[in-house]
Formats: sequence, C-alpha cells, structure tokens
Amino acid sequence: MTKLTLSSFVNGRKSLLEQRLTDYVLQLEIPTQLQESMIYSLQAGGKRLRPMLLFATVEGFGESFQESLPVACALEMIHTYSLIHDDLPAMDNDDLRRGKPTNHKVFGEATAILAGDALLTFAFQVIATMSETSVDSSQKLRLIVELAKAAGPQGMVGGQAADMEGENKQLTLSELEYIHHHKTGDLLSYAIIAGAILAKASEKDVENLRFFAKHLGLAFQIKDDILDIEGSEENLGKPVGSDISNEKSTYPKLLGLDGAKNKLDNHISLAKEYLYNVSINSEKLELLVDYIMNRDR
Amino acid sequence: MTKLTLSSFVNGRKSLLEQRLTDYVLQLEIPTQLQESMIYSLQAGGKRLRPMLLFATVEGFGESFQESLPVACALEMIHTYSLIHDDLPAMDNDDLRRGKPTNHKVFGEATAILAGDALLTFAFQVIATMSETSVDSSQKLRLIVELAKAAGPQGMVGGQAADMEGENKQLTLSELEYIHHHKTGDLLSYAIIAGAILAKASEKDVENLRFFAKHLGLAFQIKDDILDIEGSEENLGKPVGSDISNEKSTYPKLLGLDGAKNKLDNHISLAKEYLYNVSINSEKLELLVDYIMNRDR
Repeated sequence: MTKLTLSSFVNGRKSLLEQRLTDYVLQLEIPTQLQESMIYSLQAGGKRLRPMLLFATVEGFGESFQESLPVACALEMIHTYSLIHDDLPAMDNDDLRRGKPTNHKVFGEATAILAGDALLTFAFQVIATMSETSVDSSQKLRLIVELAKAAGPQGMVGGQAADMEGENKQLTLSELEYIHHHKTGDLLSYAIIAGAILAKASEKDVENLRFFAKHLGLAFQIKDDILDIEGSEENLGKPVGSDISNEKSTYPKLLGLDGAKNKLDNHISLAKEYLYNVSINSEKLELLVDYIMNRDR
Repeated sequence: MTKLTLSSFVNGRKSLLEQRLTDYVLQLEIPTQLQESMIYSLQAGGKRLRPMLLFATVEGFGESFQESLPVACALEMIHTYSLIHDDLPAMDNDDLRRGKPTNHKVFGEATAILAGDALLTFAFQVIATMSETSVDSSQKLRLIVELAKAAGPQGMVGGQAADMEGENKQLTLSELEYIHHHKTGDLLSYAIIAGAILAKASEKDVENLRFFAKHLGLAFQIKDDILDIEGSEENLGKPVGSDISNEKSTYPKLLGLDGAKNKLDNHISLAKEYLYNVSINSEKLELLVDYIMNRDR
C-alpha cells in the first residue's frame, strides 16, 4: 500500500469543497452584487485547513467526508466572513489578501459588511437544513451550539476584540494566549469537534480531541509568528517582519525566537499525546499536524 | 372584565424582556469593551415591536410568553445587530439613533462591527441552547432555519443590499416592495412565525399567519413613509421630509400621499382577513395591528 501524502489527501477533497461552497451561494435568489461579493471571497483560495481538519477527523472515525461537506462549507463561510470583516478599513485596513484585492476594495465597504453578515447567517442555515439521513436533530443542534460558541463573543469575535484592546500595549504571555486561543484557535478546534460530533464519537474522545485541538491551535499561531521572522516575503505574501514593525505582541518577542520554537515543539508534543488517547485512525490528522509545524507560509 | 390596552400588554412584558436581554450578555465572560458595546445597543430602547408580536402570537394560542423569552431575545439581538451595522459610516452613516449616539460613535467602528457580529452569532446560540422542557429539537431547528432565512441573504441582509443597489435611482413599485418585504418585513414576519412554531400551531395556521405578517410588514413600511411627510420632527427623532431630501424612493412618491394611504388601508384589511382564518385569540395581535396603523412615530 502506498503511503498517504498530504497533497493526495487535500487534492481529492478541496475541489469538491470549493464547488459545493459556490453552489450553496449560487442557488440563492439574492441581489447580484451581494451574491458576487460572497462568492468572490469564498473563491479566494487559501489552504482550506479547517475543512481538511474536519474531514481528517471524520475519516479517522471511519466515516466518509462527503456527508460532512455541509458542515465543512458552513465552517469555511464563517472563516471567510471573519476575513472580510477583519480586512475592513476600520479593522486591519488591508488592501490585499492572498495577492488579490480584498472584498471591500472590489465591492465597496457597505457590500463587504453585508457579505460578511450574509455568510455568517447563512452558515447556520446550511447546518440546520442538512439532510436528516446523515445527521439527526440533536447532532445538528450540537453542531450549531459549538459553532456559535467558537465563532461568537466567547470565541473568535471575543479574541478579535481582545486583540484590538491589546494593540500597542505589551501583553503578558497569558493575555497573548487568550487572544490566540479564541481568535484563531476556537475555529480550528471547531473543525475537529464538529468531525467528532458528525462521527458520533464518545464523550471521552470528544474531550481528548478538544485538548488536542487547543494545543494544535496554539502551535499554529506560534508557527505564524516564527514565519513572520524566518519566512520569505514571496511565500508569505506580506513583508517579513511586519509584526515587529507593527509593534505587535508575538511569541518570539515575549520568549525569544528559540523560546518560541521550544514552545511550538511543546504544544505539538502535547497535541499528539492527547491524540493518542483517542480511538481514531489518526494518520490523516497527523499529516495535517506535520504540515502545520513544517509549513513555510 | 376590563378591556386590554396596548400599554398594559406592553408594560407587563417589556421590562422582563429587557432584563433578560442584558442578563444574557452579562453572563458571558468576554472582553469588557465588546460586552459594554453589545449591552449599550441592546439597552438603547425602542418599541420592542418584534418581541411584542411574538408574545401576542404565542399568547393568542394560549401559551405563556415567558417560555418564549429566549426566542424574543434572539430576535431582538438580530434586530439590534442590524441597526448597529446599518448606522456605520460605510452604510447610513448615522450619528444618532433614538436621540442617543450610535454604537460606533461611542465605541469606535471596529468594536461596533464586532458587537454586531457577536449579537448575530449569539442569537443562534440562545435558541439552540433553550431548555428542552419548553421546546423540542425539531422546534428549535425550525426556529433556527426560519431565523437564518429571515435575517440572512434571502431576508433582511438581501433587502438591505437591494436597497443600496437601488439608491439614487427611481424604483418601480415592485422593486420597492421587494426591498421592504425583505429589509423590514422578514424579521417582523419571523416574530409571528416563531410564535406559531413555539405554540405548535397547525401548518394551515402557520401559512395564514405568514400572509398576515407579510401584509402587516408592508403596512408598517408604508406608515413609516407617510410619517416622514406628516409626522412631527419631535416624535420621529429625525427631520420631517428627510426621505424626500435624500431622493429616496417611497410609497407616497410612487403613489401620491392619498394613494399610499389607500395602499396602507388595503394591506391592513388583507392582513386582518388572513388573521381571521387562524384558530387563534387574535385580541393582542389586533392591538398591535392598530398600533402600527395609528402610531405617530
């Protein structure tokens, strides 16, 4: 048997996901500008890391990824809405994302705000209207509660708000962890928890996966901070050292570069420990863990 | 028996609703600025018309309004988020709402965007986590699907987008109806449909209530347009004739003032016809219909 590679895993799933994402929005009878603006950002590419984590979890429990496509799409809609709103002039004021003009640069600020609101709202509709042959009502409600917690004031939006409140001030390590845990970690965790819910995993497995996901999320963020120092501008699509020139609090700034690398290794080890306690074929999740740790962008 | 008045109906329910709205957000452990910003707009007053329509429907079917408080709060959170985002500089750029500074004037644009996102997301969490003693899973999912449709791209957000696309251009009557049907009508309708779902009304009653709500929503908007011409600045809290000076398409502009008044009467009559077909004690809903038709603000 040939060894599974990351690219064969991703390639078999990414185009299906992207097609479905577009189909969901195309099927809506809504004003043209709004529809084009939603699709523009959904098609703007990216690693699709969250859906891949979801698929890897579902498949690790022996289920097919196709049945989980609606949840993967909802998750990617939430991630996409958060990027559209983050890029707005009042927030990060970014003109480019992944080398393409940001949503508000193409469609104007008002449409960008509305496209974000629309994607956020529609994500819940997509989960709530899933076919009952693949998930029952209690699974759907659990998927909705976990998504709202991960994306809302207790999750991603709360992390973003804390990040803004902490701007231009020296953060402690625990403040920095709070921000990253919620701003990026919660939605990464959701991908894994949602996979476990879809696969009807045991509560014990769900709890171990929650810790696995928490450490993975923090590792992801530390790696981002390290790449800002060691990466190449070409790979990152933004100037190297931009965090430093922005006076942003980062792990290397608080712990030194070696300290940050140790912290990264530490979180990856802890993540893997929790993963080994789960009754799952972890091959695909481990591929993604290795990718997160070794990526150059 | 004394005749029920609007003020006795509203007064017995409004303060409980407003207390619960604040409690929901206060119980969250989230960044201070975000929390204050959410509460500021939730406490900014207003008629609370949508929750009152929900209560009147639930009670018309013989249920107590207390059990429906979470859905009424979720609905008011969605309405509140829409006002916060609508007031933003990139949208209507309003400095005042109901005589108080708008959210972004107090907390800044970034926090206002996030507070809106947070209220929108949290609304779904509030419904999905309702106690199972009052509603079962299938009712919750239906409440969530209907809310997402009413608030999202097929509903309120779509209406808002269509309104923006139609700005500074002469609309046809059907374009104007599309905008109002979705921009304000869908969330008013949701109040009534949600009440019917909570009370486990028959499908026939739900469908008649849907038509009742549709005509009520259009009547509400026509009344708004008429008030812009005939109301007093003091009552409205904005300059009389501001729609005309903004070159906005309105019913009086398309139909003349008398034509608009006829249209209003027409929608109210149709609304009442549909309501009479429903197996409900319609006393409280009729109080609200009369209020909508006769209000001076």
